[in-house]
Amino acid sequence: MKILSLDSSGMVASAALLTDEILTAEYTLNHKKTHSQTLMSMLDEIVRMTDWDLESVDAIAIAKGPGSFTGLRIGSAAVKGLAHALDKPVVEVPTLEAMAYQAYGYMGLIAPIMDARRSQVYTAAYTFDEKGKFTCLMESSALSVEEFVSKLKEFGRPVMLMGDGVPVYEEKIRSLMHDGFDVNDRIAGSEITDCEVDKSEGSDVCDILIAPPHMNRQRAASVAALGALYVKEGKTVSAAQHTPLYLRKPQAERELEAGLLKT
Amino acid sequence: MKILSLDSSGMVASAALLTDEILTAEYTLNHKKTHSQTLMSMLDEIVRMTDWDLESVDAIAIAKGPGSFTGLRIGSAAVKGLAHALDKPVVEVPTLEAMAYQAYGYMGLIAPIMDARRSQVYTAAYTFDEKGKFTCLMESSALSVEEFVSKLKEFGRPVMLMGDGVPVYEEKIRSLMHDGFDVNDRIAGSEITDCEVDKSEGSDVCDILIAPPHMNRQRAASVAALGALYVKEGKTVSAAQHTPLYLRKPQAERELEAGLLKT
Repeated sequence: MKILSLDSSGMVASAALLTDEILTAEYTLNHKKTHSQTLMSMLDEIVRMTDWDLESVDAIAIAKGPGSFTGLRIGSAAVKGLAHALDKPVVEVPTLEAMAYQAYGYMGLIAPIMDARRSQVYTAAYTFDEKGKFTCLMESSALSVEEFVSKLKEFGRPVMLMGDGVPVYEEKIRSLMHDGFDVNDRIAGSEITDCEVDKSEGSDVCDILIAPPHMNRQRAASVAALGALYVKEGKTVSAAQHTPLYLRKPQAERELEAGLLKT
Repeated sequence: MKILSLDSSGMVASAALLTDEILTAEYTLNHKKTHSQTLMSMLDEIVRMTDWDLESVDAIAIAKGPGSFTGLRIGSAAVKGLAHALDKPVVEVPTLEAMAYQAYGYMGLIAPIMDARRSQVYTAAYTFDEKGKFTCLMESSALSVEEFVSKLKEFGRPVMLMGDGVPVYEEKIRSLMHDGFDVNDRIAGSEITDCEVDKSEGSDVCDILIAPPHMNRQRAASVAALGALYVKEGKTVSAAQHTPLYLRKPQAERELEAGLLKT
């Protein structure tokens, strides 16, 4: 099976070509250039270098969101155009699911967090079992950091964080994990209670791993790998049916509804 | 810290640029084109797209081997040239270590296997603990598949396999894991004993995960991520000092020593 995939849901622009179990090509940039300038030229580059015949593609996979509004729209527009022109199905892979899939085999909680601005993160939670089965424990949501940490505490298991929300919120998350004491309490010398150790799991509920740099952002290869699984399950849509998953309304619509913008 | 990295140790050609915790760019091809045609043009492409000033690089990381003789020589020659011209240190990252590092957080045994021909694999074994500490449990070696499986049985814990040895040897490995019965015994209807379940570990010693396609081959991003850690530990060499790790002598030398070639 041949899958072409794109991810432009965040700062990263990434394109990949997958042939069955082999990643034929992947090209990823995390640079200030806008996706509208880079994404299609990156795809063109890898198609040219691998002599791929796009007519032979089985499906086109896209990181459908959540993510940056502009990024998602550029990716969706590109995929709609390609799928329509080539008459191929589209596979919509949730952005956070593809991010989490990079931590294949990790049996704690995998929680990608994307900075959604307005003190919110786009997040979700996944895990793998010992057989490599991938399970979603929390659907993609827009949460405040406090709500996110509250969810983590409910799960009560070691967690791996990844995504562009990590550099922004890691300190706050670590602080909130300590029973509601925040960094300022800590600096002021308040007593921090020790993490509860869940002996049945054999792990400290406060264990937080930070995904290393080769797997802490979006990757089209991960979108393609999951996309192939979706295609096998028949989970595809047409070019016309495909829509990004925004999770929140764009700022202009929110301001309009709040009476802040004139119609 | 800025790291430029290359991996051409196998069929994959891969180049990456890392800036601290961010993968700035990565370009990977697994295609029939030879590395001598592709590797430097791929690097040139990502440097151009990211406007990187190569003078600002802190170190140049290379997958030092084991791997294909030709592939390793091309990668080493490229890195020696770059490091000499730019007057930068070289970071030598074992190929199998960089492959295993893709399974960050997996607490079973991570065993990359590269097809070394002559019924051998280049292999090594690593694991992560709950704090994300990465440990080498078996150094890079050239082993027969039988020796490899014998090692796996000694470790007696779940294993994740990756690398181009998987499609070649997976069936044989699974068969040998079953107490010495091979596939032919199985086909002939011989009784296969069940795997021993090691209850203290809570897992079946026969559990074998196969790394999915986004993490089952070499990646320069993983070489760069480990390379950055090595640089922090001061583990660099000069361009002149760098040599690939071949593990075995090339075929021509073996044939010469065996008296099969005339001098």
